[in-house]
Amino acid sequence: MRQLTPPIDDYRIKEEPFYIPTGEEVALFEAAHKARLPFLLKGPTGCGKTRFVSYMAHKLGLPLITVACHEELTATDLLGRYLITGDETVWMDGPLTAGVRQGAIVYLDEVVQARSDTLVLLHPVTDYRRFLPIDKLGTVLQAPADFMLVVSYNPGFQSVLKEFKPATRQRFVAVDFDYPGEAQEGEILLREAGVSKEVANRLVQVGRKLRNLADRGLDGGVSTRSLVSAGALISQGISPESAAASALTAALTDDPDVTQAIQSVLSDFF
Amino acid sequence: MRQLTPPIDDYRIKEEPFYIPTGEEVALFEAAHKARLPFLLKGPTGCGKTRFVSYMAHKLGLPLITVACHEELTATDLLGRYLITGDETVWMDGPLTAGVRQGAIVYLDEVVQARSDTLVLLHPVTDYRRFLPIDKLGTVLQAPADFMLVVSYNPGFQSVLKEFKPATRQRFVAVDFDYPGEAQEGEILLREAGVSKEVANRLVQVGRKLRNLADRGLDGGVSTRSLVSAGALISQGISPESAAASALTAALTDDPDVTQAIQSVLSDFF
Amino acid sequence: MRQLTPPIDDYRIKEEPFYIPTGEEVALFEAAHKARLPFLLKGPTGCGKTRFVSYMAHKLGLPLITVACHEELTATDLLGRYLITGDETVWMDGPLTAGVRQGAIVYLDEVVQARSDTLVLLHPVTDYRRFLPIDKLGTVLQAPADFMLVVSYNPGFQSVLKEFKPATRQRFVAVDFDYPGEAQEGEILLREAGVSKEVANRLVQVGRKLRNLADRGLDGGVSTRSLVSAGALISQGISPESAAASALTAALTDDPDVTQAIQSVLSDFF
Amino acid sequence: MRQLTPPIDDYRIKEEPFYIPTGEEVALFEAAHKARLPFLLKGPTGCGKTRFVSYMAHKLGLPLITVACHEELTATDLLGRYLITGDETVWMDGPLTAGVRQGAIVYLDEVVQARSDTLVLLHPVTDYRRFLPIDKLGTVLQAPADFMLVVSYNPGFQSVLKEFKPATRQRFVAVDFDYPGEAQEGEILLREAGVSKEVANRLVQVGRKLRNLADRGLDGGVSTRSLVSAGALISQGISPESAAASALTAALTDDPDVTQAIQSVLSDFF
Amino acid sequence: MRQLTPPIDDYRIKEEPFYIPTGEEVALFEAAHKARLPFLLKGPTGCGKTRFVSYMAHKLGLPLITVACHEELTATDLLGRYLITGDETVWMDGPLTAGVRQGAIVYLDEVVQARSDTLVLLHPVTDYRRFLPIDKLGTVLQAPADFMLVVSYNPGFQSVLKEFKPATRQRFVAVDFDYPGEAQEGEILLREAGVSKEVANRLVQVGRKLRNLADRGLDGGVSTRSLVSAGALISQGISPESAAASALTAALTDDPDVTQAIQSVLSDFF
Amino acid sequence: MRQLTPPIDDYRIKEEPFYIPTGEEVALFEAAHKARLPFLLKGPTGCGKTRFVSYMAHKLGLPLITVACHEELTATDLLGRYLITGDETVWMDGPLTAGVRQGAIVYLDEVVQARSDTLVLLHPVTDYRRFLPIDKLGTVLQAPADFMLVVSYNPGFQSVLKEFKPATRQRFVAVDFDYPGEAQEGEILLREAGVSKEVANRLVQVGRKLRNLADRGLDGGVSTRSLVSAGALISQGISPESAAASALTAALTDDPDVTQAIQSVLSDFF
Repeated sequence: MRQLTPPIDDYRIKEEPFYIPTGEEVALFEAAHKARLPFLLKGPTGCGKTRFVSYMAHKLGLPLITVACHEELTATDLLGRYLITGDETVWMDGPLTAGVRQGAIVYLDEVVQARSDTLVLLHPVTDYRRFLPIDKLGTVLQAPADFMLVVSYNPGFQSVLKEFKPATRQRFVAVDFDYPGEAQEGEILLREAGVSKEVANRLVQVGRKLRNLADRGLDGGVSTRSLVSAGALISQGISPESAAASALTAALTDDPDVTQAIQSVLSDFF
Repeated sequence: MRQLTPPIDDYRIKEEPFYIPTGEEVALFEAAHKARLPFLLKGPTGCGKTRFVSYMAHKLGLPLITVACHEELTATDLLGRYLITGDETVWMDGPLTAGVRQGAIVYLDEVVQARSDTLVLLHPVTDYRRFLPIDKLGTVLQAPADFMLVVSYNPGFQSVLKEFKPATRQRFVAVDFDYPGEAQEGEILLREAGVSKEVANRLVQVGRKLRNLADRGLDGGVSTRSLVSAGALISQGISPESAAASALTAALTDDPDVTQAIQSVLSDFF
Repeated sequence: MRQLTPPIDDYRIKEEPFYIPTGEEVALFEAAHKARLPFLLKGPTGCGKTRFVSYMAHKLGLPLITVACHEELTATDLLGRYLITGDETVWMDGPLTAGVRQGAIVYLDEVVQARSDTLVLLHPVTDYRRFLPIDKLGTVLQAPADFMLVVSYNPGFQSVLKEFKPATRQRFVAVDFDYPGEAQEGEILLREAGVSKEVANRLVQVGRKLRNLADRGLDGGVSTRSLVSAGALISQGISPESAAASALTAALTDDPDVTQAIQSVLSDFF
Repeated sequence: MRQLTPPIDDYRIKEEPFYIPTGEEVALFEAAHKARLPFLLKGPTGCGKTRFVSYMAHKLGLPLITVACHEELTATDLLGRYLITGDETVWMDGPLTAGVRQGAIVYLDEVVQARSDTLVLLHPVTDYRRFLPIDKLGTVLQAPADFMLVVSYNPGFQSVLKEFKPATRQRFVAVDFDYPGEAQEGEILLREAGVSKEVANRLVQVGRKLRNLADRGLDGGVSTRSLVSAGALISQGISPESAAASALTAALTDDPDVTQAIQSVLSDFF
Repeated sequence: MRQLTPPIDDYRIKEEPFYIPTGEEVALFEAAHKARLPFLLKGPTGCGKTRFVSYMAHKLGLPLITVACHEELTATDLLGRYLITGDETVWMDGPLTAGVRQGAIVYLDEVVQARSDTLVLLHPVTDYRRFLPIDKLGTVLQAPADFMLVVSYNPGFQSVLKEFKPATRQRFVAVDFDYPGEAQEGEILLREAGVSKEVANRLVQVGRKLRNLADRGLDGGVSTRSLVSAGALISQGISPESAAASALTAALTDDPDVTQAIQSVLSDFF
Repeated sequence: MRQLTPPIDDYRIKEEPFYIPTGEEVALFEAAHKARLPFLLKGPTGCGKTRFVSYMAHKLGLPLITVACHEELTATDLLGRYLITGDETVWMDGPLTAGVRQGAIVYLDEVVQARSDTLVLLHPVTDYRRFLPIDKLGTVLQAPADFMLVVSYNPGFQSVLKEFKPATRQRFVAVDFDYPGEAQEGEILLREAGVSKEVANRLVQVGRKLRNLADRGLDGGVSTRSLVSAGALISQGISPESAAASALTAALTDDPDVTQAIQSVLSDFF
C-alpha cells in the first residue's frame, strides 16, 4: 500500500523569526532537545509562545509542524488516515506521524483543548520508549533523535473539564511565559507595527495599565499582539483614538462596564 | 491528485451594493486590509452588517465568500474535503481554503454560532504567520496580501455557551454597528421598499418606538429589514395596518403581551 | 460532474385543493410572493396550514416541495449530497436546492423542530441577496423570482429549547392561523368526511366544547382533522359513539382524567 | 439507477392467525382501512396487539411489514438507503417505502420508542395528502388505497421523554386493548400452551391474582404470553411449581419482595 | 448479491464442558428448547452461567454463538452488514442472523449492558412469530426449531439506567443461578486449579467467608472463578499467601479498608 | 478475502530493558503466564509498570503489543477493521486480534480509561474459554498458550465514572506497584539520567519529600520519571535549580500555592 507523508521541507522556517528571549527558555529548550524530552510552554494568549517555537525550530534547523488543538481533534487527525482512490488505498500521514517519521518538531498549540483521551496516544512517544504505535497501519514508528514534541497552553483558561492530566504532563519539562518587559515590548511595537518610538511607548504604557484590569472583567488581559494591531492601524493613518477603540476595546469586550473602564484608561493616553 | 477550487469570479460583487456609511467603518476596514489584520463586525440582526461587507468587497475589488456559521460547522466544511469519483479522488476546497488560495474576503456570518474548537483553525491565518495548515492535504497554504478574514456577530445573542473566545477575538480589529439614524433609515425605506416619503417616515417612527420595547420582551428589537418588509407589503397594495401586523407583529413574536404592546404602538401610526 | 435534480413537474398540484379562506391570508401570500419575501404560517396542528400552502401553490401555478422538519434534519438533507456510483460521482439536489434552482415554493413544515443551526443556511436566500451558497458544490445559486420559502409552526408547541430564532424569523412576513369558524368547519366536514349535515353540526359543536378542555390537559385541543376522522368512521358505518371514542378520545389522550372529561362532553352529543 | 424493493409476497400471512376478538376492534380496523385513516393500538405488553394486526392483515388479504421501533431508528431505516456495489449504486427500499409502494400494512410496534423527529416523516402519508416524500431519491410516492399505517404502544411505559406527540397522534384513529377475559384467556391457553382445561383454568386465575400485584412493584403485570409460557413448560413435563417459578417469577422480577409476593400467590394454586 | 454466513461448525462444542448441575436447570433448558421458548439465566459473575450454556449446547448437539453485550452493540452488529469489495457488495451475517439461519443457540452474555432499543429487535424472534426481520436485506428469516435464544445477566449489577425491560424479559423463561455448594465448589477447584484436596477445602472456606463481606464493600463477592485463579497460582508454585493476595485481594479491590478486611480473613487460612 | 496482521517481529523487545525487581512480581507474572491467567498491574504514574511489562516480555521471549487506552477506544480499534482498496477488501487485524493470533503479550495501558463496554469483549479471552469472537469476520480465534493479556491502571485516578468493573477485574491476578525504594531509585537516576551519585541522591531525597505533598494539591506525587527528567536536564548543563523548576515545578502544577510549596522544598536541596 502506498504511504504518503507531507513534503517536510514545506515546514522549514526559511527566515529567522523576530524573537527577543526573556530568560533561560532558549537554553532549556536546547537541553530538552538533546535529552530527548518533550517540552511544555505555559503562558497567556498572544505573549509570543508560538514565535518562540518558530525561533527554536529555525535555530535548531528543524522543520516545525503546528497543530491547533480543539475538542474534536481525533487520534486519526494526529496519526493519519486512509484515502480511497479509484484504484488503490493510500495512507496519508497525519501531522504527528509525519513529524515522528521525518524528525521534526511537532507543536500542539493549546493542548488542553484536545480531549485527554486523544492525548493518551502521546504517551509512548514521550517516555523512554519514544515510539508511536499506529494501529491502523499495524506498525510502530521509532522516533529519530531530532523528533521533539512541544505543547503549549494558557493556564488562565484551563478549566476543571479541560485540564492537562498529570499522567501526561509529568512527561514534559516546562517553562513559564509571560508578556515581555517594557523595553522588549516597545522594541516589538517599533518593529512589528512600524509606529514611532513615542507611539510605541504610549501603547506599552496602555498595555501595562489595561493588564491591571484583568481582574475587573477583561478576560486574558491585553496581549502584545493587540497592541501591535492598534499600532498597525495607526501606521495606516487611523487616529490613535479610533485605532485603540477598535483593537483594544471593541475587539476585546462586549461588556459596557468593561468598555467604559478601558476607554477611561485610553483617554489618559490619546 | 486533482484539486478543485470554486471559480472565484462567481464570488465577485458585480454592482455596487446600496450602502450608507454611518461612521469611520470604511476607513477602518481599508486600514485593516492594508495592515493584513482580520476584521470583526458587532451589531444587532438586520442592521446592515452583511451589506457593509458586500460594499467593501466591491470597493476593494475583491471576491466575497460568505459562510453562515452554525453549531455543526466543521473544520472539513471550512477547509475542504475529498470527493471520490469512479476513477480518482479529487480534493474540493472549502470556502476558507478557496479564499486563502485565491485572495478573497472570507466572511463568517454569526461567527459565535460556530463551535470555538472549529474556530481554532483560524488562528494561524489570523496572526503574523498568515498560513492555513490543511492536514488532510498534508500542506500549508500561505495567504496572499488580498486575503482578508471578516467575521460578525450580534453581541445581544452571545451566551455563556457560545462566546467568541478571547484567544480568538483578540486577533481582530473591531467595529460596533447599530441601526442607521432616522434620515438614513428613511432613505433606505424609500429605496428598498419603494414606499412614499410619508409612509417611510411613519415606518421609521414606528421602528424607533418599537426599539424601546426591546426590554419588554421583544428580543432583538425591530430591524431595518423588518421595516423594509412592512413597506414592501404596502407597496404591493396591502393596507398599512395588515402589513405592519404581518411584518412587525406576527413575524416577531408569539407572546400575547408583546403582541398587545406592539399593536398599541402601531395603532398610533396606522 | 453530473448533477441531478428532482423532476419538478412531480411537485405540481394537479387539482385545486379544497380550501376556504378565513381572512386576508390569500392577499398577503400573493403580496409576499411579488415582493419576494419569505412567508411564515403560525397556528395549531390540523387547522389547515398545509392545505393553504397547497392551495396557494396551485393558485400561483408553482410547484410545491414540502419538507417535514425534525431535529436530525441536516444541511445536507436540505441542500443535497453526492452519490457515488461505480464510475462517477453525481450530485443530487436536496429539496431546498431543487426549489431554488427551479423556482418552486419550498415549504418547511414544523420549522421549529429543525435545529436553529440548520436554519442558518436559509439566511442568504431570505434577505436581499436571495442566493443559496452550496459549499459542497463550491457554487452559489441565485434564486429566480418564482422561488418562495414558506415555513410553518405551532406556537403552542414551541419550547425554550426549540424556538424560531429572532435572527431568522424577522426575515419573514407572517400570518396567524386558527381553527375555522363554525360554518366553515361544518362545510369541511360535509365535504371531507361525507357525513350528513346533522352529524356535521354535532361534530362541530363537540369540537368547540372540547377545545375548551385544552387547559385541562388535552394538549393541542381537537383539530378539524380529528373531527373529519370521526366523521369518516361514521360514514363507514361505525356508530357515532364508537367513532368519537376512537378518533376523539383514545387517539388524543392516555390520561384517565382527560378521557373521563372528553367522554362526559361526548355523551351530551351522541 | 436500479431500485430494489423487498419481495412483497414474503410478507403475506399464509395461515389465519389464532385471534379471538374482544370488542369492536375488527369493525373499526376495517372502517379505518376503507376511510384510509391510520390506526393506533394502545395496550399492555403481551395482550395480543401484534396478533390482532396479523389477523387483520390476513383478513384483508394484505401483506404486513412490521418494524420494531427503537431510539436509533432513523429516517433512513424507514425510507431506504443507497447500496454501493462495484459497478453501480442501487437503492434499497426501507420497510415504510416498500409498504407505500406496494400497498401493504406497515406496522410500527412500540412506536413511542422511536424518536419523535423520526416520526415526523409519517405526517404527509397520514393526512389527506397520503404521499411519502423520499428526499434521497428526489421523489414523492403516492400511497395506493391498500396502504395502511398501523402503530402500537403501551401507555403504561410512556414517559415524559418518550411520548407520542399530539401533532402525530391526532392523525390516527385508536383502539384500547387489554388482557382478554377469563373465558378467552382460558381458550388461548388450551390452544397455545396445549395444557389441560384444569391447568388452563388455574393459570388464568393465577394471572388475574398477579395482575392485582401491578401496583406492588410488578411492572406491567403478568401477560397472557407469560401464562402461555408457563403452560408450555408444564406441557413439556416440568412440574407446575417449577414452570410457574420460571415463567411467572424469575422471568418477571429480580426484586426479593416482589418474588415473595408472587410465590405466595402461586402457592395457593400449585 | 452474495451472502456470507460464518461456518457454523466452528461454533460447535467439541468436548463436553465440565459442569456440575445444581438444580433443575438442565430439565428446564431442555423443556424451553422443545417449547421453543427463549431462556434467561440470572446470577452473579463467575458462578458458571457461561459453562452451563456450553454444557447444554454440547448436550443438545447445537452450535453455540456467544455475543458479549455492551452499550455500543448495534442492531447492525447483531444482524449483519454489507461489505464492499472491489467488484461486488457482499452481505455478512451478524451472530444473531447466523444463529437464526442455521439453527444455533445464540447466547447474549450480560444482556442488560446492551441498549434496550437494540434488544427490541429480539421481539419478533422471541414470540410466537419466531421470525427475524432484516430490513437492510429487505427480508424476513423464519427461525428453525433448533434456534434458541439464551441471555444472561447479573441482577446485582442491574441499575435504573440499565434494566432488562418488562416488554422484553417477559418473553423468557428464567432460572436463578448462584455460586455452587461447598462440595461442588471443592470438586471444581480440584479439577480446574489442580490443587490438593486440602488446599481446595481451604479455598472453599475462604470463598464462603469472603462472600459474607459483600455488604462491606466487596462488590460482587468472590466468584468461583477467583478461587480457581488463586488455586492455579498455588499449583504453579506461588505461596498460598501470595496467590491469595494477588487473586483474592489486589484483583478484587483498590479500597484500603476492604483490602484490610479481606487480608484479615485470609490470615486465618494461610 | 485477504487478511493482514502486523509483522509480529516488529513487536519483539530486542534488548533487555533496565528493570530492578521490587518484590515477587516476576515470579507471579511467570506463574500467571503458565496458568494462562490475565495479569493486572496497579500503581501510580511513572513508577515503572510499563518497563516491567517490557522486561517480562523480553524474559519470556514474547512480542509485546501495547495499547494506550482512552475513552474513544472502540471494539473495532482492538479487533480490527476492513480496508477497502481499489479491487478488494482486506481485513487488518487490530492489536488484540494480532496478539491472540500470534501468541503475544497484549498490554492495555491505563485500562480504566477505556469504556467498560469496550472491555466486555475481553471476557471470552480472559476465562477458561480463551477465545476471541470477531463478529465482523464471522469467526472465533482460539488463543495459543503464549498469548497473555496484561492491563494496568493507577488506582489513584480511578473515578466513579471510570472504574474497572468487578465482572471484568475478577478475571485477573493482580500485583500492586509503587515508587522504587531509595537505593533502587538512586540506581535508576545514575543510569537513566547520567547524573553523579551526589546529584542522584539529592534528587531521590527531593522525590521523597515531594511525595509527602501529595495531599497538599500535587496530584499524583512526583514520579521517578520526573526525577529522571530533572537529572537529564542537569546532565545537559542546566543548573540544578532551573532543571528542578522546569521538571519538578512548572511541569507538575499551575497552582501558585503548590508551586510555592514545591519551591520551598527544592530550596533546601539546590
